[in-house]
Amino acid sequence: MTRAAEPADPADHAAQAVPARSTVGIVGGGPAGLLLARLLHRAGVDCVVLESRDRAYVEQRQRAGILEQGTVDALRGCGAATRLEREGLVHDGVELRWDGRRHRIDFPSLTGGRRVWVYAQTEVVKDLIALQLHDGPPLLFDAEVRQVTGAHQERPVIHYTHGGRDRTLVCDWVVGCDGFYGVTRRAVPDGVLRTLEKVYPYSWLGMLADVPPSSDELIYAHSPRGFALHSMRSPTVSRLYLQVPNGTDPADWPDQRIWDELDARFALDARFARDGGWTLNRGPVTQKAVLPMRSLVTEPMRWGRVLLAGDAAHIVPPTGAKGLNLAASDVVVLARAFAAQAADGSTALLDAYSDTCLRRVWRAEHFSWSMTTMLHTDPDQSEFETRLQLSQLDRIAASPQASAELAENYAGLPIG
Amino acid sequence: MTRAAEPADPADHAAQAVPARSTVGIVGGGPAGLLLARLLHRAGVDCVVLESRDRAYVEQRQRAGILEQGTVDALRGCGAATRLEREGLVHDGVELRWDGRRHRIDFPSLTGGRRVWVYAQTEVVKDLIALQLHDGPPLLFDAEVRQVTGAHQERPVIHYTHGGRDRTLVCDWVVGCDGFYGVTRRAVPDGVLRTLEKVYPYSWLGMLADVPPSSDELIYAHSPRGFALHSMRSPTVSRLYLQVPNGTDPADWPDQRIWDELDARFALDARFARDGGWTLNRGPVTQKAVLPMRSLVTEPMRWGRVLLAGDAAHIVPPTGAKGLNLAASDVVVLARAFAAQAADGSTALLDAYSDTCLRRVWRAEHFSWSMTTMLHTDPDQSEFETRLQLSQLDRIAASPQASAELAENYAGLPIG
Repeated sequence: MTRAAEPADPADHAAQAVPARSTVGIVGGGPAGLLLARLLHRAGVDCVVLESRDRAYVEQRQRAGILEQGTVDALRGCGAATRLEREGLVHDGVELRWDGRRHRIDFPSLTGGRRVWVYAQTEVVKDLIALQLHDGPPLLFDAEVRQVTGAHQERPVIHYTHGGRDRTLVCDWVVGCDGFYGVTRRAVPDGVLRTLEKVYPYSWLGMLADVPPSSDELIYAHSPRGFALHSMRSPTVSRLYLQVPNGTDPADWPDQRIWDELDARFALDARFARDGGWTLNRGPVTQKAVLPMRSLVTEPMRWGRVLLAGDAAHIVPPTGAKGLNLAASDVVVLARAFAAQAADGSTALLDAYSDTCLRRVWRAEHFSWSMTTMLHTDPDQSEFETRLQLSQLDRIAASPQASAELAENYAGLPIG
Repeated sequence: MTRAAEPADPADHAAQAVPARSTVGIVGGGPAGLLLARLLHRAGVDCVVLESRDRAYVEQRQRAGILEQGTVDALRGCGAATRLEREGLVHDGVELRWDGRRHRIDFPSLTGGRRVWVYAQTEVVKDLIALQLHDGPPLLFDAEVRQVTGAHQERPVIHYTHGGRDRTLVCDWVVGCDGFYGVTRRAVPDGVLRTLEKVYPYSWLGMLADVPPSSDELIYAHSPRGFALHSMRSPTVSRLYLQVPNGTDPADWPDQRIWDELDARFALDARFARDGGWTLNRGPVTQKAVLPMRSLVTEPMRWGRVLLAGDAAHIVPPTGAKGLNLAASDVVVLARAFAAQAADGSTALLDAYSDTCLRRVWRAEHFSWSMTTMLHTDPDQSEFETRLQLSQLDRIAASPQASAELAENYAGLPIG
């Protein structure tokens, strides 16, 4: 079923590596597009990835850092987990803090052995790019897709600019892995896609700091001052987040203010601080940025021969660590569907793609919303609502069922 | 420790039965006050119950109808469960309906054997009144409490009117079981009690109908038309509820409209209707009333020698069936505390009363809020929020943990 690349113009050397025809055209070389390309390569389905940015930009884009079991399994399954196995930090739990208390959620004991990995999205992307350039199907950087046409015809076409020339890629299928603001969505006629959305009245100030993490595991803190999250990128780099008002200017947050605020939000009552204690390690903040919080779902995720995956179809607030993992599960479902179609011509799995993914998407949307609204302080929130949050956190600490419900959703539900 | 009743005025025959002194003075003869009196009687602590209404009114007040295991255990423990054992309907589960689907929550298998009883509050009250008048401590009807004074002194005093005369009852402790609008709360100085509250943008239209229930178990229905609940009072009387806008006039709901609307909200998709089927039994609606929905907690529940119990301290929306059960658990905690104090003079349990109860109260508040907001349609709700509700209902149907979390809270957590 694999087609060889067909040079668009044999007279043009630059075009030698630029195919004009592909079974699957993938718009966007982030983790969704790259993982899909790798999975298709393994399944013997030919594809081309078009990424509008250059390689350095894509490899440095700071995004998520928590990989679910299912995402790790997918990376392993396509040979992309070698460095992850070596450098990724296996996490068996997270800590919740509220009202001066702390409670650890233990994933393996609550979920029948599931866990998560701390391994930055930037590293996943680097690993997938290296593999793709080594033996994979074509991956073009600086390939700016202008338009996708013929979504409802037999051969949709990707129109893009690369190396100063306008080019086309004729495909059997086009997959949009180019995010919510990407061009693939626009291939679908107005009125077909329905976008359901929720915007939150707060943002995250996200920081990278050159200091060893202050805890082996992530800490999610509810505080009357607002939410805080302690995470990590590596044994020497801390990743920290503070709830801030929408429209916050990071310049208003010098290092001293950041550390003092983190200290205040993670503070433990003396009676809970003894066991293991807690000291926030301070160090130079090397990056800071404000991240708005949004929930968004586009339905359906397929129209004709155009399919949407990852952020192109849905966005979650980052509190549940679900964004990257949802993108991975979308493309796992999609790769299986393309493989089935290549094997026997059946489009049953492709036809079911949107419904299959949306069930999982809505579960993750609900979980992300519930984690977000349980842990953040809405500026308009009443004291009654604050006490409901604390009661729910107390319940999670007291009840194996409530803990398990959080752990199962966090560590990730099975794909498919 | 039991004190004999001391007639206020031996010359007055009517006053023979009216004591002027009591260890515990209970304001309010609803289920909380009556159960407390019965528990205290069993523990050998003397008390007097003052109820502002007449017996017939109290016995006819339509309220809750679901008794948790712990409430039934408390009634059994004080000999008040004879008729309940005979006539109460043991329920091992409830049904959820949404999106044309149905799912049964099985309490015993999810909670280690807990269940609930359908037995109307009116019947609980009748049973407790009969016992109290037979061998219990004094219970005065038409005893209108005007004021409670001396809350922070050794001997608080209840000032009330009975038989056309102003009287006083001098107590060691006063317990307010007289609801949120009762006078006992006013014994506490301004600024001491803190009231946290949430009002919902919808009400229930509650109906009694002379028709056998259409299902053996309660049915909680999410519908785009609004929430509906199918319940029962007995094998021949159905209890039905419809979400309606605040300010609804019951006169706008003739029988035909009620039954048509119930049919629409409980409707099942053909593919889910087959197993067991569903027909709504119609019959004459004998009562209908609009019930506003509110969440409210007063803290603390004790000040000096005045203690608040049941609705005097907290209100829940009825969706979780927690109001009567919270009142029962308050007075179980309180009876234990008075018994301990009578036994050895220790006020440790009385001192802990407010904290002990509030933990359970906040759990029930959270559960009642979560059931309410999962099942009702807020008039301002976005489609995204509706889909979160459906996703949560799907999750409950799919996950033993999520089901168990609902079942444990519904069937009731241990008291104390």
